[in-house]
Amino acid sequence: MRYTISDVAKLANVSKATVSRVLNNSKPVSDEVKKRVLKVIEETNFQPSALARSLSNRQTKLIGVLLPDIANPVFSKIIDGIEKKAHEEDYSVLLCNTRHNEEEELKYLDILREKEVDGIIFNGFHSSEKFREKLSKFSIPIAVIGYDDESYDYPAVLIDNLKASYDMTKHIIDSGKKNIAMVHGPIEDYCSGYQRMEGYKNALLNNSLKYNKEYMKKGNYTYKSGYDSAKELLKKYSDIDAFFCANDMMAIGVMKAILEIGKSIPKDIAVAGFDDIDVASVYTPALTTVHQPFELKGESVMSQMLKLLNGKEVERQIVHKYKIVIRESI
Amino acid sequence: MRYTISDVAKLANVSKATVSRVLNNSKPVSDEVKKRVLKVIEETNFQPSALARSLSNRQTKLIGVLLPDIANPVFSKIIDGIEKKAHEEDYSVLLCNTRHNEEEELKYLDILREKEVDGIIFNGFHSSEKFREKLSKFSIPIAVIGYDDESYDYPAVLIDNLKASYDMTKHIIDSGKKNIAMVHGPIEDYCSGYQRMEGYKNALLNNSLKYNKEYMKKGNYTYKSGYDSAKELLKKYSDIDAFFCANDMMAIGVMKAILEIGKSIPKDIAVAGFDDIDVASVYTPALTTVHQPFELKGESVMSQMLKLLNGKEVERQIVHKYKIVIRESI
Repeated sequence: MRYTISDVAKLANVSKATVSRVLNNSKPVSDEVKKRVLKVIEETNFQPSALARSLSNRQTKLIGVLLPDIANPVFSKIIDGIEKKAHEEDYSVLLCNTRHNEEEELKYLDILREKEVDGIIFNGFHSSEKFREKLSKFSIPIAVIGYDDESYDYPAVLIDNLKASYDMTKHIIDSGKKNIAMVHGPIEDYCSGYQRMEGYKNALLNNSLKYNKEYMKKGNYTYKSGYDSAKELLKKYSDIDAFFCANDMMAIGVMKAILEIGKSIPKDIAVAGFDDIDVASVYTPALTTVHQPFELKGESVMSQMLKLLNGKEVERQIVHKYKIVIRESI
Repeated sequence: MRYTISDVAKLANVSKATVSRVLNNSKPVSDEVKKRVLKVIEETNFQPSALARSLSNRQTKLIGVLLPDIANPVFSKIIDGIEKKAHEEDYSVLLCNTRHNEEEELKYLDILREKEVDGIIFNGFHSSEKFREKLSKFSIPIAVIGYDDESYDYPAVLIDNLKASYDMTKHIIDSGKKNIAMVHGPIEDYCSGYQRMEGYKNALLNNSLKYNKEYMKKGNYTYKSGYDSAKELLKKYSDIDAFFCANDMMAIGVMKAILEIGKSIPKDIAVAGFDDIDVASVYTPALTTVHQPFELKGESVMSQMLKLLNGKEVERQIVHKYKIVIRESI
């Protein structure tokens, strides 16, 4: 049996408020009463619950984390990092898997309000106007992971996607490839979609290469969309000698499509990805890609959150380093 | 400003208990008082918090989910399924990533007790005696995902690992391979380690093939351990003509090692995996493997949990179907 504060109050012949005062040292209680209450607490092994304590100090030690797809290795690594840092500081992660769905995002905000989480971390992509408006009504710390755009005013943790994809495209150009196709993400995804595409375009233009819209196809970051996009492009344009992809999963799909038609990588057609998920180095050929420190980014955004929770100043943006990792595919 | 129950009580000139009675319809309140309280509630737009309601009905609508590695695609898909089902029924998932670490497992149980979760779902592997003892002291519903052994008395959701790996090994044998090596998991992992190894052994013995301990190496389910194990075995035993691996990540590492020494898959050396993670079908060659319905298993264990929470009977075990998926690697 677990004793409640009412039981303790009854046994000590005082009010619940008095028990609470003794527990929280919130208001003076006579020594005699205090002694009596503490004795009962000891005898009953009464432990005030986290819920009860939460109610008095309005802290739940819960952080709501909204991500679009927890089964995507990128997000599972990010949440790994967030959870690690949170756990170190006695915060727990309430997992909100929004499945790229606007209704779910909105519903989750209601849940986070209900649960009275102490803070919210989210990935800005796919966040509708309604979501933004609803989010702006929260008066708790909020931070963004892996995304940022001018419309937000929350601290964000990310990498320089524009520069990283410029550098990767430049590496492909420097390797002697001329007709570089791209499988990019949705344009409305400002960082991973738009910026990675812009970096690719800029690198082509700055290196006197033709920039051909026909060589660009939009994928949705899945293996299948990379595979399908490459199939279509390779059928139409026999002069493509390289692919730059906005993430590794699409790059791996692209490699499969290339190998299926009997072409060799990178001799006939080179491939480069973005992210450096675990399988990138194990694929044959091993994928040349942009390495992102996902776990570190997760820890970093949680560190920002902890600062906010403790009333400290935070930087508007933390930009982590990326690394061009050259393997076999280019 | 957010109004509290105390504010409402003060403004309506009644006690907090009276406000609570009106809100919960728990005890009779005079019509006049009720009207006064409801008017103040309307004027202040007062909303009783989830915390306050939790305290009165002792429900938090939180489910603690302990998994050994959230960044492993197998577990991220399982938690995807758990979260989906939980969310449908207005439960939220408290993510506990134990990182294969006993201390973390124990620490997380303390947190789950503190947070007064309504139920606990966990993966039984790596759960020490201390953990089991501590867990047994919880008086809330508990269910196990992807694991089971005789020492547990909780409802479990899993597949028949013994039979699945028997079937997969039989397929390799039927394809004409004779010297089949295995990269298995840790023996203390009863389902994915021990049972998948036993299925392999039984298939060899029942098909008059020699069973050679030298051809077996223990991995830890990572790409790297598969790669390293294959490197070592291929160096020592030139007659190995197939590998069966206890999971896909190790099988992909094995394929890399085989391709690196210029052997062809499956002609020279065949490879089969277990799990059917997303990359299995995209690898070149595409991996023949045992398909497991991870998301479904996740949903299924959460359904068991919901039954337990609603005081309904549950089966001791739910055994999901697996499927041998034949692709290119054997």
